[in-house]
Amino acid sequence: MRQSSYIELNDENLPGITGLLAYSPETAQPLLQLAEALLRSESTLSPGERELIAARVSYLNNCHFCHTSHAAAAIAHLGCDIEMIDDIKNDFQKMEISSKLRKLLDIAALVQKGGRFVTPEAIDAAKKEGASDKEIHDTVLIAAAFCMYNRYVDGLSTWAPVPKEAYQEMGQKMAFEGYLRQR
Amino acid sequence: MRQSSYIELNDENLPGITGLLAYSPETAQPLLQLAEALLRSESTLSPGERELIAARVSYLNNCHFCHTSHAAAAIAHLGCDIEMIDDIKNDFQKMEISSKLRKLLDIAALVQKGGRFVTPEAIDAAKKEGASDKEIHDTVLIAAAFCMYNRYVDGLSTWAPVPKEAYQEMGQKMAFEGYLRQR
Repeated sequence: MRQSSYIELNDENLPGITGLLAYSPETAQPLLQLAEALLRSESTLSPGERELIAARVSYLNNCHFCHTSHAAAAIAHLGCDIEMIDDIKNDFQKMEISSKLRKLLDIAALVQKGGRFVTPEAIDAAKKEGASDKEIHDTVLIAAAFCMYNRYVDGLSTWAPVPKEAYQEMGQKMAFEGYLRQR
Repeated sequence: MRQSSYIELNDENLPGITGLLAYSPETAQPLLQLAEALLRSESTLSPGERELIAARVSYLNNCHFCHTSHAAAAIAHLGCDIEMIDDIKNDFQKMEISSKLRKLLDIAALVQKGGRFVTPEAIDAAKKEGASDKEIHDTVLIAAAFCMYNRYVDGLSTWAPVPKEAYQEMGQKMAFEGYLRQR
């Protein structure tokens, strides 16, 4: 039986954050605009790289819906096989990622623990691999934002499909149509 | 000497999140719209109650800037003395808050730990005190959002004034002019 959320949603069939966005349109608008700005706007970090940061932080927060949907968006951007979704959980053993992205992912993992866990050493390590101030800013804010989205989704106990295959079409829409499309 | 942030901001004199909002206007807009919708829009929870939730979560996240500025906004709304800022840290020993708000603050504290820490028992306890689904939704999203704002502010190591008196004018502006005023 499907888990039911802690509050009565307009449409209990909408998984994860989608049911909450439909429930509260006033907050949905800035939440979606923030996702669009963070993950798909003009940046020297590719959308695929930014979705990997989002997916990794969501995994660290144990948020299955956000992890798997943003992982699916990442692999859609990067043209990877769906099996690579599991590689995000395994800290990128197989996926080829740049040494700069690896250091940015280290910063994101510290942000996931809390803002004060970020160290000057972690920042310097990313800068040494060529990370710009803007890239560090965006990494910190993406990681922080997913600490919000993840808590919103799980704090209200929304349901989520289990198999990763169920997220493939959603990931493609997130990647190629974006977060501001007509819902 | 004032701590310097991890990235070079346009104006290092702007404290806490304000320097970051000036640095990144594209993300500032949804971040401020979200704060306005969560803390000041029409709701059965008063703006003062919602600012107390924001301030308490920020204190639990050890974010001095967000804790003290939102505490100052709360006391401005509630007409309390500035000393009450410390009562928020002390889990409301002196301030008279409703039993419903106390149960909502319990939910917020669980969200601060992580979305999966929220229990059906904590939700039921708030409902028994008269909390509506919408109030529970808003509490979870306020707590989640401050897990973002707090990480953004401290993850980039912004500076913050120390004494609570330095936040009084800021809190009044947040309370009475809101988050979307011309910055």
